[in-house]
Amino acid sequence: MQAEIITIGDEILIGQIVDSNSAFIAKELNKIGVSVYQITSVQDDREHILRSLEEAGNRSSVVIVTGGLGPTKDDVTKPTLCQFFDDELVRDEKVLAHIEELFKKYINSPISDLNRQQALVPTKAKVLHNAFGTAPGLWMKKDKVSYFFLPGVPYEMKNLILTSVLPAIIEEYERPHIVHKTIMTYGMGESTIAEKIEDWENNLPSAIKLAYLPNLGRVKLRLSAKGQDKEALVSMVEDEAKKLYPLIGDIIYGEEEDGAIEVQIGKLLTEKRMTLATAESFTGGKIAEQVTSVPGASHYFKGSVVCYATETKIKVLGVPKELVEQYSVVSEEVAVAMAERVRDLLGSDFGIATTGNAGPTKGDSDADVGTVYIAISSPKGSFAQEFNMGNHRERVVKKSVGKAFELLYKEILNF
Amino acid sequence: MQAEIITIGDEILIGQIVDSNSAFIAKELNKIGVSVYQITSVQDDREHILRSLEEAGNRSSVVIVTGGLGPTKDDVTKPTLCQFFDDELVRDEKVLAHIEELFKKYINSPISDLNRQQALVPTKAKVLHNAFGTAPGLWMKKDKVSYFFLPGVPYEMKNLILTSVLPAIIEEYERPHIVHKTIMTYGMGESTIAEKIEDWENNLPSAIKLAYLPNLGRVKLRLSAKGQDKEALVSMVEDEAKKLYPLIGDIIYGEEEDGAIEVQIGKLLTEKRMTLATAESFTGGKIAEQVTSVPGASHYFKGSVVCYATETKIKVLGVPKELVEQYSVVSEEVAVAMAERVRDLLGSDFGIATTGNAGPTKGDSDADVGTVYIAISSPKGSFAQEFNMGNHRERVVKKSVGKAFELLYKEILNF
Repeated sequence: MQAEIITIGDEILIGQIVDSNSAFIAKELNKIGVSVYQITSVQDDREHILRSLEEAGNRSSVVIVTGGLGPTKDDVTKPTLCQFFDDELVRDEKVLAHIEELFKKYINSPISDLNRQQALVPTKAKVLHNAFGTAPGLWMKKDKVSYFFLPGVPYEMKNLILTSVLPAIIEEYERPHIVHKTIMTYGMGESTIAEKIEDWENNLPSAIKLAYLPNLGRVKLRLSAKGQDKEALVSMVEDEAKKLYPLIGDIIYGEEEDGAIEVQIGKLLTEKRMTLATAESFTGGKIAEQVTSVPGASHYFKGSVVCYATETKIKVLGVPKELVEQYSVVSEEVAVAMAERVRDLLGSDFGIATTGNAGPTKGDSDADVGTVYIAISSPKGSFAQEFNMGNHRERVVKKSVGKAFELLYKEILNF
Repeated sequence: MQAEIITIGDEILIGQIVDSNSAFIAKELNKIGVSVYQITSVQDDREHILRSLEEAGNRSSVVIVTGGLGPTKDDVTKPTLCQFFDDELVRDEKVLAHIEELFKKYINSPISDLNRQQALVPTKAKVLHNAFGTAPGLWMKKDKVSYFFLPGVPYEMKNLILTSVLPAIIEEYERPHIVHKTIMTYGMGESTIAEKIEDWENNLPSAIKLAYLPNLGRVKLRLSAKGQDKEALVSMVEDEAKKLYPLIGDIIYGEEEDGAIEVQIGKLLTEKRMTLATAESFTGGKIAEQVTSVPGASHYFKGSVVCYATETKIKVLGVPKELVEQYSVVSEEVAVAMAERVRDLLGSDFGIATTGNAGPTKGDSDADVGTVYIAISSPKGSFAQEFNMGNHRERVVKKSVGKAFELLYKEILNF
């Protein structure tokens, strides 16, 4: 069975916001065996909304619509719903009580007529309780197609999907199983991988689809299988995935359910009861931020010295001034000293350091834009590697953060 | 005149990636007066692609398609193009030479047949040079509608949009002007703002559209006007925007073209020749990362001590151990001490400090999940404020980073 997602609102169409809501919904639907056939972003416009609801309902059994339910005047969705479902709006007393309660608890301003209007719902709608906000979710049906209307605020929408929409779909529709397995690789390009696994790919069972997902120097390989017998699908996908390891095992750093590389580093460090600290120049704290985005990071992450200025490297980290003068601040020697000093200073087992020039102009050194050094220090010693990450500031930082995690990951495996 | 965007590829439909390409394209099209009518994400499937191309072409004069042009076997786009345009593929020698050159320069593996196939293009296509990658862009026409096909890799796509697609559209199509102005506010909810500006909103000229864009405790107000006379539109929008200041001037922190709040802080610090350092506990380096995302930050940002562990606050920052014991690590007193110590240690004019509990479980203190302190220290003194940011780890961090910038911004204005 298949579903569609429609987002309403000009802000996506003028590029003011990125549509991350649809990615979340698609992922959750996939987990319960619902394929998303199409995602459509439409304008806050009656005719356009009507046409999209109609078309999506002709193709799919479930249509999830986000956006267009806010309290202010740019929203035309609810009157349009009434037209589509031939219905009218009535006040829902439970919703009104909830809005009044939220205002009393969290909001320091008096409740307005605009807010009260959010309690108006179509008579044929089943109201879905929005625990985190004032706009309720709505579940409506037309010719056996379920339409779910949700507010566009991501965290309200996510909660409604998890607590109301998915349970409703599971209850109402029979679904096949979809099994995905994603193998994460690093250090090799898409087409080189494709050549290495060509025979394997050509011999994949027809029920399995393979996709290459390249991003910032890493390629993910995603295997997908769909069918009725979940166990058979899982073992078929597992069998094929296993065959990949003899072919490209040296570039595989994990499978997606293991989590991102910083999650895996966290697991390894926790297991080995070891700790990490970072000294970041041009990465500006992004390594620390990514490490601490993992819940529980406080068990293994001591902290970071973000030493953007050269004097901070010397004064706070204690990198010898002579070293900077002799080799320049963007050098292998300074990178290694930073990694060693931050380990000492923060008392950690591992240290990561970055120094380089992310551009757009040259900084405190003569290094070319894109030239970076990444150093790792551990109880077994220290080393730094030089990279040229190109001349796009944001990419230089992102690629370097990724590379730092790869180097650390390999190093931790030695302990 | 209007355009549509189509993205091809299962990875958006299974929620593996967020469609940030479309946001970029929509923003750029808007700047040159092209409205985006619809954005559609479709499957890597011949029938689905054909239908979307057809429908988009019936509605709009320009259709921009991304994705489906990679070297590996999950891509069906090019044969589908040939069917749609009644065309066939031929080898383009210039594209082939470019692919060979890229391999020689940057890629450490031999060129493969798969890579060579990327030089196959439909005979009716105008080839758009992809400086950064091996898949060329294609410009094709059908019944006066322009179709642009671009690779899905964001930085290749962006370059093609800027260097080839926009100039082609400007050359070929007459466009009205679209003028946007976005006023950025903080500290007040959407509906309260709506009430305060109700009279103004009701009296807006009909050519002006207003949208409320709420996100993490801040609301942006976007005014849009469309028409032939650019100067008249600009002055109409400017006039209306000016009227907002007497109504809600106290919650406006800038206009969008001024840049995000960290950009404005950067401008102020540069102007006043003052500097900043941060001491971050639960925000884990995110403030530093956001400060350094602004090119030129090295002129005013000294660095950060990310003191995730309590011992790092004491050992590296030099927060007195007794203070932590007396008040607990999540307290106003410790926050202020952190901000003052990091100013001293890094020799900056301003210091920001954060300490709190982002969850999911309690850390080194008894503070409730979501309780945070943000401190600002300046040559005029120091203060900290307590906030409860809810119980969603990622939101606690994001909202706190935003709040820290707001507090700092107001403080800098005193100098």
